[in-house]
Amino acid sequence: MFQNLKMVSRVIFGRGSFDQLDALLAEKRRGSQSFMLFLVDDVFSNSQLRGRIPSKNHDLLLWVSVDDEPRTAYVDELTARVRAYSNRLPDVVVGIGGGSAMDIAKAVSLMLTNVGSSADYQGWDLIANPAVYHLGIPTLSGTGAEVSRTAILIGPDKKLGINSDHTVFDQIILDPDLISGAPADQRFYTGMDCYAHCVESLNGTYINAFAKSCAEKAMALCREVFLVQDSDTDEQLMMASFFGGMSIAYSQVGICHALSYGLSFVLGIHHGLGNCIALNSLEDYYPEGVREFRSMMEKQGIGLPKNPLTGINDAKLEKMIDVALVLEPLWENALGADWKSVMTRQKIRELYLRM
Amino acid sequence: MFQNLKMVSRVIFGRGSFDQLDALLAEKRRGSQSFMLFLVDDVFSNSQLRGRIPSKNHDLLLWVSVDDEPRTAYVDELTARVRAYSNRLPDVVVGIGGGSAMDIAKAVSLMLTNVGSSADYQGWDLIANPAVYHLGIPTLSGTGAEVSRTAILIGPDKKLGINSDHTVFDQIILDPDLISGAPADQRFYTGMDCYAHCVESLNGTYINAFAKSCAEKAMALCREVFLVQDSDTDEQLMMASFFGGMSIAYSQVGICHALSYGLSFVLGIHHGLGNCIALNSLEDYYPEGVREFRSMMEKQGIGLPKNPLTGINDAKLEKMIDVALVLEPLWENALGADWKSVMTRQKIRELYLRM
Repeated sequence: MFQNLKMVSRVIFGRGSFDQLDALLAEKRRGSQSFMLFLVDDVFSNSQLRGRIPSKNHDLLLWVSVDDEPRTAYVDELTARVRAYSNRLPDVVVGIGGGSAMDIAKAVSLMLTNVGSSADYQGWDLIANPAVYHLGIPTLSGTGAEVSRTAILIGPDKKLGINSDHTVFDQIILDPDLISGAPADQRFYTGMDCYAHCVESLNGTYINAFAKSCAEKAMALCREVFLVQDSDTDEQLMMASFFGGMSIAYSQVGICHALSYGLSFVLGIHHGLGNCIALNSLEDYYPEGVREFRSMMEKQGIGLPKNPLTGINDAKLEKMIDVALVLEPLWENALGADWKSVMTRQKIRELYLRM
Repeated sequence: MFQNLKMVSRVIFGRGSFDQLDALLAEKRRGSQSFMLFLVDDVFSNSQLRGRIPSKNHDLLLWVSVDDEPRTAYVDELTARVRAYSNRLPDVVVGIGGGSAMDIAKAVSLMLTNVGSSADYQGWDLIANPAVYHLGIPTLSGTGAEVSRTAILIGPDKKLGINSDHTVFDQIILDPDLISGAPADQRFYTGMDCYAHCVESLNGTYINAFAKSCAEKAMALCREVFLVQDSDTDEQLMMASFFGGMSIAYSQVGICHALSYGLSFVLGIHHGLGNCIALNSLEDYYPEGVREFRSMMEKQGIGLPKNPLTGINDAKLEKMIDVALVLEPLWENALGADWKSVMTRQKIRELYLRM
């Protein structure tokens, strides 16, 4: 059985296309009592972008904090605030921000129409009801969250996505101008999320011609952005993220992401940086990818924290291994059906301690 | 204003994925009186594929002739046959075949829910009502019809597509095994439709980073298929068509396609071959593309008909020029807003007579 890939229904791409948001929402407004829900990264609360958000009348704008990676409790709290605000559903949930804001918007749009806690839905295809129409506007590129079928959350026990066809955005606006203001290190770490997607997809057992051609294009664009061009590369980076996301949507990530999830869960390390730390220790598995990743770091003048696991106690290390091991499809993709005989807890411990 | 690209909602890719059609349709069957409509290229009426088409109960299977390029009258006739068969709509319209069969399936699915003749809708965004759910399964690759927002038809006066968001397939199944049996020349001419999409998109004024990255990947895949690899290239060709289609969906084709439409309308030359004949005469406009196209022809051992316009009378030539000139967005993409001052009737005549 081949996967039936749910694609994002509609895409607008172009510099300044953010300003089409108002017109898009106008088509969706269902009357005078209806409202839009904006979930916006609070880094923009004092920005020029704030004034461009077309919030009006009864619309609800919530600034979301992404200082920490998004947690299920936070998604539940935001969902409760929306329910307290109105007994009707918003016409559209609009997410504006990086991968965390995208995932929060996806998760809230799902939880508004599904009972219980978002933690109940961490896994694969557990969502029962379609989400509220949701629209994503990335302000960082690399995560692929704009096209993926997951909303990755840190829950009580694990970091794991709400993976479902209903998670996929109905509409995205890809405006390269929005990613131009990001700090260089954040831009790099997030871009390397995309690069890791390509390395893991292309070197995985789930690879197929669809995912391969997407990953190859994303990788070529990453090279343009991080190795070749010195001038404006926002458009290429945005397209790299799009294709990298499409690639893993039709294949899977691998060891780098599995280890990165453990780093995020236990140490609170953000996803992009976690991937960079993990990838940097995976020469045995992705030799060419690791070499090129280091060239990109060097060319961009970006560093990694030294010995991020220094002083970690054994209980935390064991928990990191637990979190990584939950991600069975990632290991199977990387190492094949027999991965459990290769990737023991001891082996994962060694990989973590190598960081 | 940037275009809001309607994407195909769902994609299945993989060798043998055709056999998932039955399960997909089962999800859509709405009761004992419901039926599916299969529109299948009649080249398969005596093939092994015939036995694999999951037609059952009240389903209606119509073999469609694509000896000629699809005409509006033919679409209207097929639509009338479906209406005569049942007073309800089919649950799904399934198109199986090359670009012509894809376009017929798209057009019939639109005409079942829109009044009048399909000729009334040749143009841009003239369709009022959503189509019946439609599913495309290409058996030739290159046209991009599987992802495009058009259904190209020859009408009473012109060759022009029904361009609308409603035209886009709801589901496609990309099974590379299905394209492996095509005759070498047909495979090549159809593949060059994709190559022409890339040349025209990349060299057009409508180009943007989204369309560019799609066209670059499609072009790289065309090179693999037609210049580099000697072994099985079905998967790559199928992905080339997908990306080439995405590229023109977010930009536009150009001079080659405009001239090719005239060839089809007046001389009945099929679209893929028409593109090859046109492209071969466009060195002044697409020098690199024409050079590479000729290398591909040579490598593949494919020829073109000599002097296809021999003996054409002036009325026919004038009509060809008329048909080409209808396609204003194509000329504008190729030559800019001021194209009318450059591309006179006389100039188009010269281009045709150069073929």
